[in-house]
Formats: sequence, structure tokens, C-alpha cells
Amino acid sequence: MELPLLTDLYQFTMAYGYWKSGRHREAAEFELFFREAPFQGGFTVYCGLEESLNFLRGFRFSRSDTDYLRSVMPSTVEEGFFHYLETVNAAEVTVTSFPEGSVVFPREPLMKVRGPLLVVQLLETTLLCLVNYASLVATNAARFRLAVGPEKRLLEMGLRRAQGPDGGLSASKYSYVGGFDCTSNVLAGKRFGIPVAGTVAHSYVTSFSSIDEVQGQTLQPADGQGGEVDFLKLSWTWLEEVCQLLKMPPHSTNVGELAAFISYAIAFPLSFLVVVDTYSVMMSGVPNFCAVALALHELGYKAVGVRLDSGDLARQSVEIRKIFRRCAERFNVPAFENLSIAVSNNISEKSLKLLTQMENEINVIGVGTHLVTCTLQPSLGCVYKLVQVNNQPRMKLSEDQEKTTIPGSKAVYRLYDGSDQPLLDLMTLGDEPPPEIGKEVKIYEVGKNIETQTVTPLRAELLHRVYFRNGQMLDSEPLPSITEVRSRAQRSLTNLSPQHRKLEDPHPYRVAVTEKLHRLLSALRRSSESRANLMQFSTGN
Amino acid sequence: MELPLLTDLYQFTMAYGYWKSGRHREAAEFELFFREAPFQGGFTVYCGLEESLNFLRGFRFSRSDTDYLRSVMPSTVEEGFFHYLETVNAAEVTVTSFPEGSVVFPREPLMKVRGPLLVVQLLETTLLCLVNYASLVATNAARFRLAVGPEKRLLEMGLRRAQGPDGGLSASKYSYVGGFDCTSNVLAGKRFGIPVAGTVAHSYVTSFSSIDEVQGQTLQPADGQGGEVDFLKLSWTWLEEVCQLLKMPPHSTNVGELAAFISYAIAFPLSFLVVVDTYSVMMSGVPNFCAVALALHELGYKAVGVRLDSGDLARQSVEIRKIFRRCAERFNVPAFENLSIAVSNNISEKSLKLLTQMENEINVIGVGTHLVTCTLQPSLGCVYKLVQVNNQPRMKLSEDQEKTTIPGSKAVYRLYDGSDQPLLDLMTLGDEPPPEIGKEVKIYEVGKNIETQTVTPLRAELLHRVYFRNGQMLDSEPLPSITEVRSRAQRSLTNLSPQHRKLEDPHPYRVAVTEKLHRLLSALRRSSESRANLMQFSTGN
Repeated sequence: MELPLLTDLYQFTMAYGYWKSGRHREAAEFELFFREAPFQGGFTVYCGLEESLNFLRGFRFSRSDTDYLRSVMPSTVEEGFFHYLETVNAAEVTVTSFPEGSVVFPREPLMKVRGPLLVVQLLETTLLCLVNYASLVATNAARFRLAVGPEKRLLEMGLRRAQGPDGGLSASKYSYVGGFDCTSNVLAGKRFGIPVAGTVAHSYVTSFSSIDEVQGQTLQPADGQGGEVDFLKLSWTWLEEVCQLLKMPPHSTNVGELAAFISYAIAFPLSFLVVVDTYSVMMSGVPNFCAVALALHELGYKAVGVRLDSGDLARQSVEIRKIFRRCAERFNVPAFENLSIAVSNNISEKSLKLLTQMENEINVIGVGTHLVTCTLQPSLGCVYKLVQVNNQPRMKLSEDQEKTTIPGSKAVYRLYDGSDQPLLDLMTLGDEPPPEIGKEVKIYEVGKNIETQTVTPLRAELLHRVYFRNGQMLDSEPLPSITEVRSRAQRSLTNLSPQHRKLEDPHPYRVAVTEKLHRLLSALRRSSESRANLMQFSTGN
Repeated sequence: MELPLLTDLYQFTMAYGYWKSGRHREAAEFELFFREAPFQGGFTVYCGLEESLNFLRGFRFSRSDTDYLRSVMPSTVEEGFFHYLETVNAAEVTVTSFPEGSVVFPREPLMKVRGPLLVVQLLETTLLCLVNYASLVATNAARFRLAVGPEKRLLEMGLRRAQGPDGGLSASKYSYVGGFDCTSNVLAGKRFGIPVAGTVAHSYVTSFSSIDEVQGQTLQPADGQGGEVDFLKLSWTWLEEVCQLLKMPPHSTNVGELAAFISYAIAFPLSFLVVVDTYSVMMSGVPNFCAVALALHELGYKAVGVRLDSGDLARQSVEIRKIFRRCAERFNVPAFENLSIAVSNNISEKSLKLLTQMENEINVIGVGTHLVTCTLQPSLGCVYKLVQVNNQPRMKLSEDQEKTTIPGSKAVYRLYDGSDQPLLDLMTLGDEPPPEIGKEVKIYEVGKNIETQTVTPLRAELLHRVYFRNGQMLDSEPLPSITEVRSRAQRSLTNLSPQHRKLEDPHPYRVAVTEKLHRLLSALRRSSESRANLMQFSTGN
């Protein structure tokens, strides 16, 4: 995709404004941040860095791009601008960022982008597009993981409900980072090396209507000894046993479903897992499954389990487990006790929480729509704001106090207490020394107009790293694999204290600024309010 | 993107099941439908057809795809299956569909996909992914258009909040189809020929801090007569006049903002539209704008207007219009009365409705997040269900009554009354004759277990068309341009009666089945409930 053109038109009109007034090569710094953690939660998992850096590497405009721009921009735009655009790339851009997968908080710069004013302005929309959804869905996935605990297996299966092909790919990738175990999305598996999973849908079951459709099919015992066995006959016999055990009329289950299960077992004797709610779970799906699974076990194979896609999932899982246990006991097949029960059916964070609070025998949970569309809050409001031009700090005041920005190029430190628990994140101006260990630091909490607080850090971790300089990724910061990003996310979440991590009414994690940054902020605000020239304030003072 | 692999793994495990049991070439038909209109509304705008057909044209698996599949599917899968997969394409697939942009209703097949069982099964997830979001966002856009009425200009600007690059492209494309006028998304403009719009962001304004930054820049009068004019000086003079008119201290506005406006006006003398809320709308942004716009007018240019991105948009627009009128009168510049006022700021369907009910002077509305993420309901639940195999109807019963499907290959007619108003959509079995004009037809409304109704259509429109056969688009149904699709959507919505079209508590549009289809449905349900063999029922009986 032609990412450099995937941006808002106003980036180009602004670029022309800069060019026309000869300011296009002034040194500027933008920062990318959000104002509030999504889902009324306390944390955000930062993602999208690698894709952003790849975008930067390929950032240039083709002749066809400038031809198009010429056709839509006002006729007063000078030809020289389009020629200049054709020379533009990210060779003078520096990107400093949190590592991908970090747990981040409101108002701190996730990414700082420094370079010629015209270039870094043009990057805005694409960078936001690459970071916003990636971070949102990773955070959502992390919440599902926290809601369900570490034991149950989580499968992402939202491709069909995502915002088109690439929305689906991103959803799979970043759900994995957020803590899911696998995806149904094959292309995501191929591209990113994420584990993939899935067996059968209802259409497979309904495509069979008669036992004739599997007549004559055979299966060899697992140990390869003895000849092919008539697997239909074997399953049919087991169905009689199962119906007797369950006190059902013999062969009262749906035969199309039975045929589907038999054919699937012949195809996948080592990975037999089928959906059991096409007709009736307890009167057809489960008895049919047990019959075919017992036939497999007789031949030395092991069935995997069942999937439920409707109804009361917790209650049904308990009932099904009981049947599995009865089969295990009656037919002396201990493995039956531990068959897997997978569920899906429009699962949300809320329903997942309820599910885990109820008695249940569920092993695997598939989540689609609510995960990939982030129903609770379908967007993360990352913004990209100018904080410095020619080493002079800039800020945007606003009648919405919330939209006011924090000026200047900043470093962010995570300060830890004596037990190595994070105390808060502290933003300093770029030219300030790092906070001194064991010494009291004056801080001002962001978004609170209260008096100074003090903290005494016993460790201070500089959170940003330089990832990109002179148009190149840096060898000093090789990009981690997706598994490493996933581990970082899980580790960062674990390090967070439970009151910051909890899904509802979390205690807000503190983000603060130093005294010097606080003074700059107040001075620029006063200066703007008194409508004086902003020029006189600089980080140097 | 390798779309054929952008699907759920279970499509391949099912495909193997079909192949292994020798059923892969059986003639099957799936249909794509949804169960409920989104946003608790009465209608859905169907989109995604063209992209679906393009996907079909390129549908084949590469060696690298089958290599990947071999690595993730169970080791029991036979090699012959992967070889077979490499031969698979859409050459035997037929697609019958509503035209793109049609207004459609729950339960009717939007798209019917017929072909070899294995192939049409494999298409499921990708088709759903291509239709679901496209239709959802087009419908959402149509609702914004209905909420605001035909007069105001609607700009889509959601790229930065979409689900990644392609989510953003789809959002722009289908918002236009749904009734938006233009997009901020440049690539969407280039790819689809959608009008693009946009001027400046706050960063442009904050990047200027001093009047020095535009010193020495000049502008030639519009008629090319006379020499270059010192535009800074001219604007400065006008600012004095404006401040006097508005009873403000002279030059009390923010000078950085003034500098930004002057530089932008020099760059775009024929399309001067700037954002006026970087500092204070009434104390800085509007006076600065008026000064620069008046300077432009003095030189024979025409300013375009202002944009607001915060605060009470309706109230501010009224106040700004008053100032424009005062300027028009005092300085004898009539064009000032009709300057454009554009607004944005997290606009939702609800806030848009409120806005239009209030006194306002707004001309252009930019909508981002709520449009592209469809906050009110971020997914459309289209599903793809098997309705027929080997000319035998199939249905999926479910313990969730709602999830039960309607069996058989169906045609859909829109029946009209004497005043050519749509009465209802009627589904017939494929081999039934069309409803007779002027003759009473027995119908059964879908989802209602009530007695027969009758209608007497005075016109019956067959809604489906065949778009794809033998791996090819059909010349008989050339795909319409995006503008034609947009017109169809707007026309279809206009034809819909107001009570079906209204955004809240709409009267449900009726979708019904014929007596014959109703009988088939009942018979299959009874048959399954009595666990008999489904084989005996066919469309032929």
C-alpha cells in the first residue's frame, strides 16, 4: 500500500505553507500521545512501533503521487513544491520511542519524532493510524486475558468482523501481543508466526444429511497394526452404547451430524474436535461426538474435544463434562475426563468475566467481534502534537483544557520504590539531568492543579530508546520478535500493581512533570493568555 | 495482500474433510446475510461487492501458501490435498447478488455463492470480511447524512482512528457511498476518485511564534495588476480595524497565530480556510482570520472560511457569523456574510442531531472517530450459511432460534404498491415463478410465528443479478463506478418510506417468504426435531 499518501490532505496544504514561507527545513519535534487510557482502564499496551518504522523507511512520494496532489491542490500551488516533495524522505528523521509492548500512560510521549518541519508534519496521520488501533486492540486483548486469568486458552477469531483485510490482520497480530494464545487467521499465522487454530463450522455439519455420505470409508488403527477398520460401523456400535448410557432411544441423534463427525474423524483422527450445537447439544451433538470419539479411542487415537457456539456456555460445559466423566468411567477411557471444551458466542469482556465467575468446565475460549472491534471503546485517541520548533517549545492552548499540550522535548523516567514497584512516570525536559537516586524530587502530577508532591526514587529507568536515525533502523536497538514483544507486554502488566491493573475503577497511575517543565508550562500558558509573544521562552532558560 | 489465505483455519480443515470423503466437488450454495440491521435502525446499505468479485478473480493458492498450511495442519493430512489446493480457483463459482449500494434488510441473501463445496466453503471468511465493514460504515454514513439533512457538507476524516491503513481506506470509500461529500484521506482520493478536502491543523498554527517568521513575504493582487504588496503590513492594518470594530485592544490577538494565518493566506490566496481555536476563538482566532481575510479581499481574492475544533460548536458558529456580518457591513465586503464555517470535534450521530436542532451557522461538518469506528455498533453480523448441497436444501437449527437459517436457493423480489412504494421483500424458492402482478400472494413474515398475510403487488422487482460466472465478471452486469454506487444508495434510501428510514424506532420493513418456502422450512424443522433423515426433502417436492 502507498502509505505515504495514506494521510489527510491538510498535511500537504500545511507542507506547502511551510515550504512557501521557507520554513520547511526548520528543526521540529512532534510527540505522539493519548489523553486517556481506553475502556476506562488504568493502562495501555503500546504497539505499532515496528510498522511505523517500516513506514518511515519507505517514506517517499512517487511521480504519480505528486501528479495526483497537483490535481487536487489549489492551482495557486507552485510547481517547485511538487518537485521538492519528490525529494522528500525520512533521512533526517529521528524516532525515539517506548519499546513496543510497553505499558504506557496518559500524556507521556509514546513516540517522539524529530526532523525537518515539513517532513515530520507529513508523517502525522499515518503514524497515528499505525499506532492507534494496534495499541487499542493489544490493550483490549490484555484486558480479556486479565479477566479470564492465565489458565484458559484464548483464541482470537474476529477476522470476519474486522475493518477489512488489514484490520483483521492487525487484530490478530496485536491480540496475540496482548495475551491471546492463538488466532484463527491463517494469513496472520503465516506472516507473523502466530499459532493458528480451528476445526469445523456448522456448515460442515449441515453439508452432511445422510449416513450414505460416509459409507465405505475406513480407518487404520493408530499403531498401523491390522487392516483398515469400517469406521462407520464402529461408530454406529458405539452410538448404541452411548445412547444406552445416556438413557436415550438408540440412534435418536441427527444422522447428518453423525456422518459429519465420522468423516471428520477419518480426516483428523489425531485432532478430532467438532462443533456440537448444530442441532441439539445434549440430544444429538454430544452423544454423536462421544460415539465417534470412543471409536477413535478403540483404534488407539485420542479425540481432542467439542466446541459450543450458542446457549448457556458455562452450564452446558458442566453438563458435557459430566457426560465425559460418565463415559470415562463406564467405558474405561480415562482420557475422556480431560477432553477439551471450547466455547464461542459473541463473548465480551463482561460476559467473559461472568463466565469465569460461574461454575464451568471450559478450556478454550474463542473471542471475535468484541475483541477486534473493541466494542467498549472502538478507538484510542492518540494525537500527534508539535512540541518544539528550532529548539523553542510550542504548546497548543485550548478552550477545552484537556486539549492543551505539554510543550518541549521531553524524557520519561519510570521511578521505582524500595521494593522495585513503579511509583510514577516522570517527564523531564530533554536537557534536565535524570532524577537522582535516593534523593527527594519535586513533582507536579499532570492534569491536577494541586501543590507540589515529592517522591524519592530508588531506581529510575529511562523509558525511551532511539530506534531510527538518518533514515535507518539502529543496530543498537534491533526490533524484537513478536514473541518478545508479547513477553514484554505480559511482563510489564505483571509488574504493574494490582490496583493500577484492575479492569474497573483502577487507581490512576501517576504521570508527573518536573518543576522545570511545570514552570515552562505555566509560563507559556500565562504568556499566551496575556497574548504576548511566545518567542521569549525556551528550554534553555 | 494474499487474500485467499486471509481466512480462518477451520475453512482448510473442513476443506480437507470434504476432500477426504470425496465430497469436495459436490454442488453447493452458500448465502451471505445478516440477522439485524445495525444501529437499531431499519435499513442497511449493502457494500463490498466489487471487492468480493476482485477477490474471487484472484482466488488461488501459491506454493508458499500450501507450504505454510502443511506446516500448521495435522500431520495426518494427506499430501494429495495440498496438491489439490494448488489447482483450486473460482472458475466454477457463480455469484448472484444485490447491486452494490442497495438498501437491504435482515435475512435476505445479499449474495449467493454457488460452486464446488470445497471452493465455496473456502471463500467464507474473506467474503464476510469484505462485506461486513463496508456495509456497516456505508450504513453509518447514510445515517449521519439523514441526521443532518441534504444541505450541510459532510467530510469524512477518520483515517487516524481506523483499524489500520486498509480500515481507513475502506472507511473513506464507503462513507462516500453512504452520503458523505468528501474525505480527508488522500490515498482514498487517488484510488477511488473521491473528492478530498482539508486545510490546516493546530500544529501549523503553533509552529509560528513570531511575526518575524513571515516578514518580507508579499502577495500580488488577484488581477495581476500592480506590483507585489507587503501582505504582512496590509493584514496588520486590517487587524487594527477589526479590533476596533470588535472593541478589542489593538493587536491583542496571538501574533504566532496571526503569522500562521498570513503565511497560509500567501500560500493559498484563493482557498484561505484556517482553524481558529488554537488559542482563543473569539479573542484571537476570529479577529486574526478577519484581518487576513479582509487583506485578501482588498487584493481581489476571496477567503473561504474558518474551522472550529473545540467548544460549543453551534453557539460559536452563531457568534462567528455575527462577526462576519458586522465585517461585511462595516467594510462593505458582502462576501463575508457567506464565509464557510466548518466544525469538527468528536461528532457522533447523536451530537450531530442535537447540533442540527440548535440554532447554528455551520456549513461543513467533519466526522472522524464515530463514523469510521461505528461506535454505536462496531460490527455488522453478516454470516455465510450453507443453504443447499446437490440441489438439496440445508438448514442449521439452533437452540438460539435466531441462529436458525432459511434453507434452499432463493430469489428475492421487492414488491411495490399502487403508488410504487415498496411493500416488502419476498423470498421465493429458486424454482418458483415470480409473484404475479395484480394478484394476491400469500406470504409469511420472517421471524414472526403468525398466520398468513396476503399482499397484492402492482410491481415486482427481481433484486438479484448474476455478476460472476466461470471465474469471470459478466459483461452483462458491468460494475458501476463509485459515483453510481453512491447514487444508487441515495436513491434507494429516498425510495424507502420515512417510517422505515427514520433513525430511531423505525417501523420494521417486512421481509417474507412464500408459502412453498415456508412449507420447506417447517418440514425441515420438524424433520430435524424428530431426528429423521433430512434427505427426503428437496426443493423439487
